[in-house]
Amino acid sequence: MTFQPVGILGGMGPEATILLQQRLLARIDARDDADHLPLFIDMNPQVPSRIAHLIEGTGEPPGPTLARMAQRLEQAGATALAMPCNTAHAYAGDIQTAVQIPLLHMVDLAVVQAAQQIRKAGAIGILASPATQSAGVFDPALARAGLSAVWPENPDRMLSAIRDIKANGPNPNSLATLVQTASELQARGADLLLIGCSEFSLLTPDLAQADRARDLPPLLDTLDVLAQAIHTHILSY
Amino acid sequence: MTFQPVGILGGMGPEATILLQQRLLARIDARDDADHLPLFIDMNPQVPSRIAHLIEGTGEPPGPTLARMAQRLEQAGATALAMPCNTAHAYAGDIQTAVQIPLLHMVDLAVVQAAQQIRKAGAIGILASPATQSAGVFDPALARAGLSAVWPENPDRMLSAIRDIKANGPNPNSLATLVQTASELQARGADLLLIGCSEFSLLTPDLAQADRARDLPPLLDTLDVLAQAIHTHILSY
Repeated sequence: MTFQPVGILGGMGPEATILLQQRLLARIDARDDADHLPLFIDMNPQVPSRIAHLIEGTGEPPGPTLARMAQRLEQAGATALAMPCNTAHAYAGDIQTAVQIPLLHMVDLAVVQAAQQIRKAGAIGILASPATQSAGVFDPALARAGLSAVWPENPDRMLSAIRDIKANGPNPNSLATLVQTASELQARGADLLLIGCSEFSLLTPDLAQADRARDLPPLLDTLDVLAQAIHTHILSY
Repeated sequence: MTFQPVGILGGMGPEATILLQQRLLARIDARDDADHLPLFIDMNPQVPSRIAHLIEGTGEPPGPTLARMAQRLEQAGATALAMPCNTAHAYAGDIQTAVQIPLLHMVDLAVVQAAQQIRKAGAIGILASPATQSAGVFDPALARAGLSAVWPENPDRMLSAIRDIKANGPNPNSLATLVQTASELQARGADLLLIGCSEFSLLTPDLAQADRARDLPPLLDTLDVLAQAIHTHILSY
């Protein structure tokens, strides 16, 4: 079997990019190296801060850097692109206009899958960065699916948790914030909880096993949706 | 600080390539994404089997594929190359003649560091694939350092353990093989044990914590030496 690589716009942050590789590895029942999927990964932790640009209004826009990365991955032979960072999808337009190959749009794909899972016009609770919310990254897909969104009431706590994970890795404090926010979104009517920040994806297994998890609505991790889309693309290309 | 990326010839196997990324991440005391090191990773699990070519004498030679990967990484802007697979260093010449940028030669660098650590003309026990041994990958560096090598008496057990890890991940059986072989190399005069296969590197923390580890000679993991070399290269470029 000849596989063609998918290009990864990575490093936002690096631990989430590693996690995507691990989730892809876990999908394959491999007997040897050659059963695994090829990737071309631009692990670029120096992409200008999405949070600084979208929330603080400082620093340079990440779009041009992401467009150059996309072009480099296309030149290297990638047949599609994927980006394990929900917030960076605010710049999906910059990426898509820079290349001929498709971007496997993690946010749009996740919303479609969420709509399939809840099977009604409902509300999705989104555990994500306030930068993702203010940039409206989820809005077009939610509108197309006829779904509404429930966002955390305290965006600063979400931002603190993301910064904490980026600096210290996943930890009990950030998990506690996530568990508490999940309950809050449930109380406010969420029919499904979407893990919409790849830093939070590092805690998805812990969240799923938390004491209160059995009473929570179903969880859907955008990073799992992306891993599935990459797998499907490579097998069907 | 502007960092330039190192290109990774990866996918041999994918789990070892992920482990290298994790070891690099662990070296950095990061406050945010931008503190981490940029990499350009060609995760190519479809590189022709090194074991098939070197031991079984079947299949196509991996050299041309590795040379093409190296050129693609150079074109993408890599300022040096690194390859988290000891056995593939049998083809280091194919890689180095294909590009202008240096290959951070994991095997040579590890032997130099081993020589510094034992501070005498001694013997290094090498936990590695028999393909690495038969291809003489370690020999030039050992000769330059005035060191001799002690290789496992049962190469088939090493090969089985590597295949087991590639198919099933690190596991108690392969760890037991590694612990037993480490004791054997010690009994036959090894002053230091070199983890010379990146599949075995997945078990280095477990080997270091095994019951018998406190009586073993010092361990040096070639993958740690490579992580250090990448870190140093990026900071000094």
